Amino acid sequence: MKRILFKTEITKRSRKIIYMDHAATTPVAEEVIETMNPYFGEVYGNASSLHVFGQNAKKVLEESRQKIAELIGAESSEIYFTSGGTEADNAALKGIAFANKYKGNHIITTKIEHDAVLKTCDYLGTKGFEITKLDVDETGLVDIEDLKNAITDKTILVSIMHANNEIGTIQNIAEIGKICREHGVYFHTDAVQTFGKIPIDVNGMNIDLLSASSHKIYGPKGVGCLFVRNGVNIETFIHGGGHEHGKRSGTENVAGIVGFGKAAEIAKRDMENEYMRLSNLRDKLIEGIFRIPGTKLNGHCEQRLPNNVNISFKHIEGEGLVLRLDDKGIAASTGSACSSYSLEPSHVLLAIGLEHGDAHGSLRLTLGKQNTKEDVNYVLRVLPGVVNGLREISPFKLKVGI
Amino acid sequence: MKRILFKTEITKRSRKIIYMDHAATTPVAEEVIETMNPYFGEVYGNASSLHVFGQNAKKVLEESRQKIAELIGAESSEIYFTSGGTEADNAALKGIAFANKYKGNHIITTKIEHDAVLKTCDYLGTKGFEITKLDVDETGLVDIEDLKNAITDKTILVSIMHANNEIGTIQNIAEIGKICREHGVYFHTDAVQTFGKIPIDVNGMNIDLLSASSHKIYGPKGVGCLFVRNGVNIETFIHGGGHEHGKRSGTENVAGIVGFGKAAEIAKRDMENEYMRLSNLRDKLIEGIFRIPGTKLNGHCEQRLPNNVNISFKHIEGEGLVLRLDDKGIAASTGSACSSYSLEPSHVLLAIGLEHGDAHGSLRLTLGKQNTKEDVNYVLRVLPGVVNGLREISPFKLKVGI
Repeated sequence: MKRILFKTEITKRSRKIIYMDHAATTPVAEEVIETMNPYFGEVYGNASSLHVFGQNAKKVLEESRQKIAELIGAESSEIYFTSGGTEADNAALKGIAFANKYKGNHIITTKIEHDAVLKTCDYLGTKGFEITKLDVDETGLVDIEDLKNAITDKTILVSIMHANNEIGTIQNIAEIGKICREHGVYFHTDAVQTFGKIPIDVNGMNIDLLSASSHKIYGPKGVGCLFVRNGVNIETFIHGGGHEHGKRSGTENVAGIVGFGKAAEIAKRDMENEYMRLSNLRDKLIEGIFRIPGTKLNGHCEQRLPNNVNISFKHIEGEGLVLRLDDKGIAASTGSACSSYSLEPSHVLLAIGLEHGDAHGSLRLTLGKQNTKEDVNYVLRVLPGVVNGLREISPFKLKVGI
Repeated sequence: MKRILFKTEITKRSRKIIYMDHAATTPVAEEVIETMNPYFGEVYGNASSLHVFGQNAKKVLEESRQKIAELIGAESSEIYFTSGGTEADNAALKGIAFANKYKGNHIITTKIEHDAVLKTCDYLGTKGFEITKLDVDETGLVDIEDLKNAITDKTILVSIMHANNEIGTIQNIAEIGKICREHGVYFHTDAVQTFGKIPIDVNGMNIDLLSASSHKIYGPKGVGCLFVRNGVNIETFIHGGGHEHGKRSGTENVAGIVGFGKAAEIAKRDMENEYMRLSNLRDKLIEGIFRIPGTKLNGHCEQRLPNNVNISFKHIEGEGLVLRLDDKGIAASTGSACSSYSLEPSHVLLAIGLEHGDAHGSLRLTLGKQNTKEDVNYVLRVLPGVVNGLREISPFKLKVGI
């Protein structure tokens, strides 16, 4: 006989899935979708065409460029559209390296950068460049003295991310920028996780190059940008018809760029409120999770992204945790999305001093616009049971004998 | 006193603009927009995420890859998504060049390639590669004997476009592919103008690498792909999280790729009918334009894209022609969209033997799905007057004294 479902059970089963993986990607905002829509089937011109279709496309491209520039205090002529943050990082690092090889071959970065920076540095390492990867402390912060000591007369570029995508630690970017400027070294920052979330001022912070991505701020995937300070020369990244001041050719993704511009405009408008709201939810989440024994917050307590929670649970594999939470209607992650299929422990967690076992066991919950206090409460209700369940079957437990 | 508008005048003024620049870009098809829509705000996961949002995104990515592979007779594992045709060309040429430098440093291409190929070759020329740019005959065809003679034991790659974007000439790709295979040289073709328009069989044609773009076949801008035959090694183009088999990192543009897949599916379904319909319209257009004195068809009479008309008008600058036609509600182009803002004559028209003056005076009309017989009739009604008007004020006329 079929079991009769009680109303509360039905409600539970049909409840929405709670998405807490906003560092991986965000839904495109309704306002952004509406703004993009006409640029697929109506205003569809190639921005390089002379006729009215082309001119209309060109106009909105430049409006979007302006909105994005405004968010970081840049000139619109300093914004180069790319296909995303990863391409922007590649364009920045390879672009500076190859254009400035005559000055020196030394690049400084950190051990906790996104793979878009680290793997590009590894590649440059095979092309005659020397790469220094700075250590970070147990909160994820770069030691400014380490940076100063690492700069030599061969150094051409420092690339240090604004905030870390896994543990949320926000670097002292203005201080880093000042040192780079004083030493006459270009400074690039991967701001994919901070652009539109916390204030950025490329002039006040002495940033020469900055990477940003649209899909992390409720814009469409497949669009991003690289800020390159006027006067800073980078090698052309994609050759062709000469788009983006000849640095990045290819027919511009007009609808995508319009969406990115709108997302940037909304991010600017909502930044302060959303910062406060998310910080409160984040703190409530951390506080609640701390009631589970054997937990540890990864990252910095204060210099932290408003939406990032990263916790290690003793004796648990992160992947199992994510899959069990998925069953319970909670979309979370362990480390970055890009490395989800890797069996390696997180390079970020290892860099902040976690043991191999613990570096496998982290849970990242990243909050966003659609998350509410109720979502946080639901996670706090569900998580202890999931953690306990996994600990009961954990092989680690047997080994360490809790 | 305000002039009273008669009904026919109002009708004329409010009539739709006729878009005949489909080689530059196409509107996104209604079916494609509908297919893409859920992937902005609903199924918005990062395809690398382990949870249900990520898995749903991953599934549709692979379905799109399959549809695109089917259109050219490839395996889906041979399709690498890029941000467009230009990136695909860059990835193919730089990727093969840097991965095969140990074998040789010679690359063969033609004088009529798109700038995405030509400028990339110029760049490779600064990195130790020898570039041979083959001549073409007055119809735009490569002489197969020239190709055979150009191949040396240093040759690693031949890159010859399938059909030219300006004059529409379709190369004897199968023959070229056969020769490359016989000589053990990789063969890349820029198929941006043919993909989805005329049949392509990468196996039958011995193609090793092929570039395609979504926005030329009623899909969204900002998406394209590179076919790389299994077993052919290219250097990684964008470094990072290891997406696209580690060759092209960056969070996948899920909505864009879904749109591209749908566009490919529709292109396959409609190819035969649309080929016939457009060829008929094209021939009607050419026939009608030929009634204007001092006209010359550029490109091949038979081996020609079904939607391409490229005509030179004696004593006329192409830019003036495009702007006047724009005033009359006809969106056309002179040469490629990418070079619209260049004052240089078309490198393609120079390569097929046109004089500098004539190479400035070409009009490209490229037909597409929304064009009808009525559109063609309208163009044929308007064009003679525009041409005559421009000839009357032409400085060329004074010089040559017609």
